[in-house]
Amino acid sequence: MIALLTDFGLSDWYVGAVKGVILGLNPGAAIVDITHSVPPQDIAAASFALLASREAFPPGTIFCVIVDPGVGTPRKIVCLRSGGRLYLAPDNGVLTEVAAEDGVEAAASVEERSFFREPTSATFHGRDIFAPVAARLSLGLAIERLGPRLDRITMIEMPKPQVGSDSAEIPVRWVDAFGNVITGCSEDLLRQLRGSWGDVVAEAGGVRIPIRETYGVGAPGELVGLVGSSHRLEISVRGGSAAARFGLAIGDKVTLRKG
Amino acid sequence: MIALLTDFGLSDWYVGAVKGVILGLNPGAAIVDITHSVPPQDIAAASFALLASREAFPPGTIFCVIVDPGVGTPRKIVCLRSGGRLYLAPDNGVLTEVAAEDGVEAAASVEERSFFREPTSATFHGRDIFAPVAARLSLGLAIERLGPRLDRITMIEMPKPQVGSDSAEIPVRWVDAFGNVITGCSEDLLRQLRGSWGDVVAEAGGVRIPIRETYGVGAPGELVGLVGSSHRLEISVRGGSAAARFGLAIGDKVTLRKG
Amino acid sequence: MIALLTDFGLSDWYVGAVKGVILGLNPGAAIVDITHSVPPQDIAAASFALLASREAFPPGTIFCVIVDPGVGTPRKIVCLRSGGRLYLAPDNGVLTEVAAEDGVEAAASVEERSFFREPTSATFHGRDIFAPVAARLSLGLAIERLGPRLDRITMIEMPKPQVGSDSAEIPVRWVDAFGNVITGCSEDLLRQLRGSWGDVVAEAGGVRIPIRETYGVGAPGELVGLVGSSHRLEISVRGGSAAARFGLAIGDKVTLRKG
Repeated sequence: MIALLTDFGLSDWYVGAVKGVILGLNPGAAIVDITHSVPPQDIAAASFALLASREAFPPGTIFCVIVDPGVGTPRKIVCLRSGGRLYLAPDNGVLTEVAAEDGVEAAASVEERSFFREPTSATFHGRDIFAPVAARLSLGLAIERLGPRLDRITMIEMPKPQVGSDSAEIPVRWVDAFGNVITGCSEDLLRQLRGSWGDVVAEAGGVRIPIRETYGVGAPGELVGLVGSSHRLEISVRGGSAAARFGLAIGDKVTLRKG
Repeated sequence: MIALLTDFGLSDWYVGAVKGVILGLNPGAAIVDITHSVPPQDIAAASFALLASREAFPPGTIFCVIVDPGVGTPRKIVCLRSGGRLYLAPDNGVLTEVAAEDGVEAAASVEERSFFREPTSATFHGRDIFAPVAARLSLGLAIERLGPRLDRITMIEMPKPQVGSDSAEIPVRWVDAFGNVITGCSEDLLRQLRGSWGDVVAEAGGVRIPIRETYGVGAPGELVGLVGSSHRLEISVRGGSAAARFGLAIGDKVTLRKG
Repeated sequence: MIALLTDFGLSDWYVGAVKGVILGLNPGAAIVDITHSVPPQDIAAASFALLASREAFPPGTIFCVIVDPGVGTPRKIVCLRSGGRLYLAPDNGVLTEVAAEDGVEAAASVEERSFFREPTSATFHGRDIFAPVAARLSLGLAIERLGPRLDRITMIEMPKPQVGSDSAEIPVRWVDAFGNVITGCSEDLLRQLRGSWGDVVAEAGGVRIPIRETYGVGAPGELVGLVGSSHRLEISVRGGSAAARFGLAIGDKVTLRKG
């Protein structure tokens, strides 16, 4: 299986071209779109989307992550084996969180041009490099054959919770189509804060938001914080958009306080 | 084949996660997106989209319908066999029109947790319940094994035509991307009205719209009512958007009158 | 493989219905979406998208192109063999550029109703004609069996570069989701202009834009013209949208001048 995560959008033929090249080389490949709506060239958002979605895919899945502001520059392309899965991505930090969480089993710099599409354009590596290499990996090509071993891949600074003595600043990492605000506060961190502080509440736009331990029936318009399906604290409004209500977007902060 | 109908949108990884889980269990499944743009949590719109699209899919198709404002509450999940097709959906009325039109051959309450993904989140049943159960159904699991038989599924009140002696109020059930306004007036009802009234015309925003029996060449900007591909009366503007012209949206009404 | 290019958008069930019919007839078909976001009923834009994307697909691919303002009128449907690929489209000029570039190996008028879905609606030929015919072609049906041979397919006037002695007016053919402006100036034409004029620069909104021969590292906000992955001159802003900056859309013009 090949899973695609890009910032291409769906209004052009770019995703289709990537799939055409993959299926031309491996007609039996099952291709799944994770999403193509990563905010354009937002490496941190792509890293988070990959982190949040990867575990729904079976071992052996090949993730093709194309969020690549440096296409055409001398940035490397990396193939990473991590947690029993393969990742093919520009070496720009987009694999930072997956590598931190699941470790690096092996990594190669993708350089062997005989696996690329010819001619190889300077601007559309998705079609000309990522697609044919992913197809060949799905046919069993060993990552060692792609190019020299990489001892380290590029890791970048990600938005991280800042924890103080009685409050914490938590970055917003994603806002979904329902308006749920997905924060960078992991289940573990929330547990630690509860251990230190007793009760914990969230605050956004001056409004206190209770954090529940379990989901349940709520009234329409009710605000709730909850560890969601991504194992992170999410702020939601039942039947509405928390993001719209508080004007929150990726990169903003939510405060947690002793409750 | 597994056909997906949700209100997830495509901007998040949610649809991708559902597909990843399905293909992890049944790599040979063919998955088709009906649409993921049902208006958020609009059960009646989802019911209509399912009604309008189901017949394009072959017998044996498993429809996975995830429009689920009650996720995490004690609402049931239902597996319905109807018209030779299988439907997996929250038991919130989203199958009302399919069940009314095609009948209920069998129905089960989906409760057997051994078929779910572990751990099962409270907020993302699409990934953790619908996907693995759909995959197992596609591998031949009998619906009787999912849980207790349901004698009745939840049926909800749908927007219906109100027929008077010389006029009828018809609900708008869907507005498509071209701006065609798809009403709840079936081919049968239109035939009855023609039988009673002789000629029938539609009216929207004070404008009379002729209803044609057959499609044909029209002038750009021409207004026309016609029984469309969903077997229901649609209002269209050639080369334009009838919805924009009349400000019509799901839930609004169009009037039919003796012509 | 069957590749779909339409103006249906993804918010309705129309694309899903097309796929349901295809897979009902050929469960083994691999279906790829090129895009469904062609501007509504824009035949020239669809022609260009097809031209730009086709070469990513392997020989034998069946392209199903449904941009069809004349659906329900007596316009023909054509099946074209060209460049080792098959195209199924309304005979409204949408194949003009593919046919001009790759030639016409064979063409048939699709008329044999026994290959259509029954009943055949007047408004949704995608589901009722294109889908079943594409499925049957993917199962090996010869195009000669679809209907009478066509000696010529409809070719329409496309936006073309107007070349003067020291400047050229170049049409904008597509604007992608990143805001790159893809023009109708081919690599060949640019080479010819360079041959005649020496250096060539682009101009939009009174701003001179250098045209590079190779891609390289640029500063954010830098304007650049370059032959892109579609083998045509594209105007880009690094890290931004050239279309937004200059207010350029499909149908507008960019000027090339002696540099």
